Amino acid sequence: MTTEPTFMRREIEAIPDAVTGFLQGSERLAEGWGIRLRQKDPAFVVTVARGSSDHAASYLKYAFEIAAGIPVASIGPSVASIYNVRLKLKGAACLAISQSGQSPDILRMAQSAREGGALTFALTNTPASPLAEVCDELVDIAAGPERSVAATKTFVNSAVAGLMILAAWARDDGLRNAVHALPEKLRDALACDWSELCEALDGRQSLFILGRGPAFAIANEAALKFKETCAIQAEAYSAAEVMHGPVSIVGKNFPVLALAARDAAERSTGETADRLAGKGAAVFITGDGAKAASRLPFASTGHPLTGPLALIVSFYSFIETLARRRGLDPDRPANLKKVTETE
Amino acid sequence: MTTEPTFMRREIEAIPDAVTGFLQGSERLAEGWGIRLRQKDPAFVVTVARGSSDHAASYLKYAFEIAAGIPVASIGPSVASIYNVRLKLKGAACLAISQSGQSPDILRMAQSAREGGALTFALTNTPASPLAEVCDELVDIAAGPERSVAATKTFVNSAVAGLMILAAWARDDGLRNAVHALPEKLRDALACDWSELCEALDGRQSLFILGRGPAFAIANEAALKFKETCAIQAEAYSAAEVMHGPVSIVGKNFPVLALAARDAAERSTGETADRLAGKGAAVFITGDGAKAASRLPFASTGHPLTGPLALIVSFYSFIETLARRRGLDPDRPANLKKVTETE
Repeated sequence: MTTEPTFMRREIEAIPDAVTGFLQGSERLAEGWGIRLRQKDPAFVVTVARGSSDHAASYLKYAFEIAAGIPVASIGPSVASIYNVRLKLKGAACLAISQSGQSPDILRMAQSAREGGALTFALTNTPASPLAEVCDELVDIAAGPERSVAATKTFVNSAVAGLMILAAWARDDGLRNAVHALPEKLRDALACDWSELCEALDGRQSLFILGRGPAFAIANEAALKFKETCAIQAEAYSAAEVMHGPVSIVGKNFPVLALAARDAAERSTGETADRLAGKGAAVFITGDGAKAASRLPFASTGHPLTGPLALIVSFYSFIETLARRRGLDPDRPANLKKVTETE
Repeated sequence: MTTEPTFMRREIEAIPDAVTGFLQGSERLAEGWGIRLRQKDPAFVVTVARGSSDHAASYLKYAFEIAAGIPVASIGPSVASIYNVRLKLKGAACLAISQSGQSPDILRMAQSAREGGALTFALTNTPASPLAEVCDELVDIAAGPERSVAATKTFVNSAVAGLMILAAWARDDGLRNAVHALPEKLRDALACDWSELCEALDGRQSLFILGRGPAFAIANEAALKFKETCAIQAEAYSAAEVMHGPVSIVGKNFPVLALAARDAAERSTGETADRLAGKGAAVFITGDGAKAASRLPFASTGHPLTGPLALIVSFYSFIETLARRRGLDPDRPANLKKVTETE
């Protein structure tokens, strides 16, 4: 008996092509983004987003900070939509990220950022959306239709779009080339088998997910997917932060997923993984960076900033399998709608 | 039979006096901070902190943004300590917050921020600490010795110190007066009785804590205390963000604590509380802003930015009681040390 793959599965498998599609469509536009940013020469960047898009924003925060030394502030949309404040943003660029481009609070904050003086970019999967209208520049992430409630390819394409903006601004050819090599690496990532982790989670209703730097943003995205698709209370921590308090709920066999990337934080994440394993936790880690934790396979991308995107693609494939293993329909999570409208 | 109060209990009850002590000691210094900030005229602020201190930083982020329109970026210490990046911070002020003033990653990031051009403030309970040495300005939060592992009075005094920096910079006399009125209001907060929530949590091992704006930062601090002192997996969400996915794990009788403050977000937080109550969750809310949720008492402070600090004081009193009710020693949480050294 064969069953139809879920929309989520099909959309995860379409990620490499979605990235290729975005790169082909945006190649000439990216140059223009770079020119406008170098003319504006922003001292800092602000991001405006919610949910998965906000995790893409957190990932991009680390990327802009690490690759270009540009500080990035994540702004809660409520600053404009609830508190009615216009931030002073004359020296800023703003990345507003929303696949639907229509959540009222994101619109209000993006509009307010532009009025406050920021050069605003709309990263959206819906070019004809109100968000595109209120921003200076439209960046069509071009992921194609996403029917699963849980965002997957729009997350990856939002992150990739932000990396291309960064590469164009900073004229970072190394990063640009790494992004162009990504679709092939993401196909490797889809093939990584995490079924050992699936089995270890049987009967568990909560876990911690660790990362550090860009991989910490990825850990947050993974935690949200655990909740959305499996109703498991996963919580993400910086591999440093977890020792400041949260460790107190880690008991024997408490599951921990450490998302280690091939970057400067790999050793530190491995050490934390081992410390938690030493407390009896059931720790899994991507790669060879730990002694006492179980190893999960990962796809190598050859660039420290693109590696975490390969991790989330392997994770997406895993979590869709886990949801079905638990008898859940990942396309129809409990209580959720695709477009969330908050003010 | 009488038992000795815990250190945590004594330190919570000492909060109003600790605030008074800080205000008396810093009155003349605050003027100087304001002058230096107006000379520098930073376009944005960055914060550097971990654990409870980072929640104080998040609270201050909203305060600076809402009261003065100044955007605030929380910088992960790993940017300097792991990724070895010097951010471009010529146009920035930096608040580094650490009660011990000695965590290596906080030191590295604060030093790097100063080298990157920021005007750096050390908010610390240890004036003779390395953090004070590497920053331009020492702000002694003067909370007195804190022996409980769980930070309480250092959290409140860090937040109060940041508010006084903000008030001095922006010459915001309304905020300054509200802070001076705070000790008395915090005594009212200590008297708020949340025992109904204590009882509702019997047998529960997880919950959500909601807030929005400054109260969202407070919700994060409360969630950490649940973990540290009661080993309960509490997770904080923006009252807006919770509908973007996390709501999927909210089932019948799932406990939710909504920390509503008397500010522009009160109505929105109340509406989310009611939506979750409508899904069968056991929702408690501070104040009268919801129809279907149970009401918890709160202390009125008369200023939208100081209200959340009264909420956390009522919460601290509650959580210390809950820990003992569960047979735990809040002074000696499992797995934790007072000074966490991470790089």
